[in-house]
Amino acid sequence: MKLRQMLKRTPSGRSAEDRLIARFFRPLATHPGAFGLIDDCAALTPPGGSDLVLKTDAIVGDVHFFAGDPPDKVAQKALRVNLSDLAAKGAKPQGFLLTLALPKGIDARWLAAFARGLRKDARAFACPLLGGDTVRTPGPVTISVAVFGTLPRGTMRARWDARRGDRIVVTGTIGDAALGLVLRQDAAAARRWGLSRSEAAHLASRYLVPRPRNALAEAVRRHASAAMDVSDGLVGDLGKLCAASGVCAEIAAARVPLSRAARKAVAAAPALVETVLTGGDDYEIVATVPPKHLAAFRAAAAEARVPVVDIGEIAKGNGRVHVRDRTGKPMLFKRPSFSHF
Amino acid sequence: MKLRQMLKRTPSGRSAEDRLIARFFRPLATHPGAFGLIDDCAALTPPGGSDLVLKTDAIVGDVHFFAGDPPDKVAQKALRVNLSDLAAKGAKPQGFLLTLALPKGIDARWLAAFARGLRKDARAFACPLLGGDTVRTPGPVTISVAVFGTLPRGTMRARWDARRGDRIVVTGTIGDAALGLVLRQDAAAARRWGLSRSEAAHLASRYLVPRPRNALAEAVRRHASAAMDVSDGLVGDLGKLCAASGVCAEIAAARVPLSRAARKAVAAAPALVETVLTGGDDYEIVATVPPKHLAAFRAAAAEARVPVVDIGEIAKGNGRVHVRDRTGKPMLFKRPSFSHF
Repeated sequence: MKLRQMLKRTPSGRSAEDRLIARFFRPLATHPGAFGLIDDCAALTPPGGSDLVLKTDAIVGDVHFFAGDPPDKVAQKALRVNLSDLAAKGAKPQGFLLTLALPKGIDARWLAAFARGLRKDARAFACPLLGGDTVRTPGPVTISVAVFGTLPRGTMRARWDARRGDRIVVTGTIGDAALGLVLRQDAAAARRWGLSRSEAAHLASRYLVPRPRNALAEAVRRHASAAMDVSDGLVGDLGKLCAASGVCAEIAAARVPLSRAARKAVAAAPALVETVLTGGDDYEIVATVPPKHLAAFRAAAAEARVPVVDIGEIAKGNGRVHVRDRTGKPMLFKRPSFSHF
Repeated sequence: MKLRQMLKRTPSGRSAEDRLIARFFRPLATHPGAFGLIDDCAALTPPGGSDLVLKTDAIVGDVHFFAGDPPDKVAQKALRVNLSDLAAKGAKPQGFLLTLALPKGIDARWLAAFARGLRKDARAFACPLLGGDTVRTPGPVTISVAVFGTLPRGTMRARWDARRGDRIVVTGTIGDAALGLVLRQDAAAARRWGLSRSEAAHLASRYLVPRPRNALAEAVRRHASAAMDVSDGLVGDLGKLCAASGVCAEIAAARVPLSRAARKAVAAAPALVETVLTGGDDYEIVATVPPKHLAAFRAAAAEARVPVVDIGEIAKGNGRVHVRDRTGKPMLFKRPSFSHF
């Protein structure tokens, strides 16, 4: 049992944990309801007539990121995987709670860089730190974030309102992060795929730090019938949306938007199409949009500077996603989505 | 790198993670805003004119609990350490988010017991599951809970409003859990301290499962000037409250309420008084109550069936806690409170 070993106390009235929090995290707690982290609870006053949207996602060292990744990027990933959900639900970020489980090897330098990355994103996404907890762990660095957003009452975009005839749209490009993870584990792949240095760097960076589509939140809320963020793979996630809505999806693989790097990789190694379509870590949005809303949705997306592509249609059915290749033939995947278990 | 090893996918549209959530956690998601966990975000509509109080606390296997502890008790501890904060702030629980990081050895039996304990407390404290995340970890079981409560706008009891002359009150008994932890690590201590089997069991159970004072929340909100839960040791936690309020505390060690088991232990081994007063894991409430509110506070506590004891007074000062023994002599502690770092 390591319980005793873990106990470290300081003779001063102020514990080392308090000092750690004051030094690294108090500067991030700019929300008035964070009370400068002087209390251990935070208070949030949601605007009248609004709902609060809540989400928690954790990332674990050597599971969701590499333990040696730059700490500022790890912090950004931890926050952004949560912000991505708010974007897909149409909610505006209000703040977040942070739980940080730290193994012994973590030093002040790591923490300073971690806090720097977190602060940068808390500002960029207008999502300040509300409070948190720091604990010791004999395991890897584990970061759990709970994020809170608001939207007008009753307007959260859910998974279950996709309807037959709705167009299926996705943001940005799909598969970059999954290919980036392959590159992290097999650096020689970049040469086999014929990627330039900058193309390989693009894929790696998409794995390292997601780029959630919070700029699209209002367009999703106003125009989509259903939406979710793509975190566990496009095909599997769209399947969850279809299952919740009691519909099917018909998508054309060739219409799924790929970056230049991903296109080159798939051209060189066609089997990678499965990695691209089912690999996950995209943190793009997949939404269903009724045809009469499509033009307005596209206009709103253009104004938000978020690229959106129509990849198919919602059909009658039972939760399946039919992906067709250029010849119209159905494509089958061994594993449509990522699962921890 | 374990990233690849960790990936396990299922050929069905529904992932093993989805099935795990559906089987063990969907029955707990009774809050309408949990949407039966079909979406991965939850929605909360706080009552008009209310503030939301937010808190997150994590517990880690072999740090905050023993990895072999009964899973239902582990679940209860994870939720209750958070509920305890809501109680001290005067807030009424509304729901919680759960992040569960699981190592490979965890099986369906463990999860079923864990979910059973969580369900029991979610009901008992009227605090349903709103959503969560389950991830794999190469480390120990790690449970992070974020809990949400509500109270009338602007009425959260903070740490910084204790005033000179306020009485210092604590609920229940102090030190049981810290002594219970000693017993868990040194079973022979029970005999040395002359404890009966039931007395030893009492101490152990107070470590295993906290008993947060949510019944007292309204009394705290109406009558206390400042309050916090005692999680890291009475002396250290009261010191944090004093530092935040810019005051000192004068308490009499003999007035700190002890259980019969704790009294016996301290009588047998007087050095244990430090363990009792600084050990932590009490999950009682320490509050400061202006003298003119004391009678009303006591009456409200009696009605809520929560024992409260006046242990001293707030004085002018700089954040120190002066503990005096029976002769009035100041007691000094090596480590006034628990800190992870």
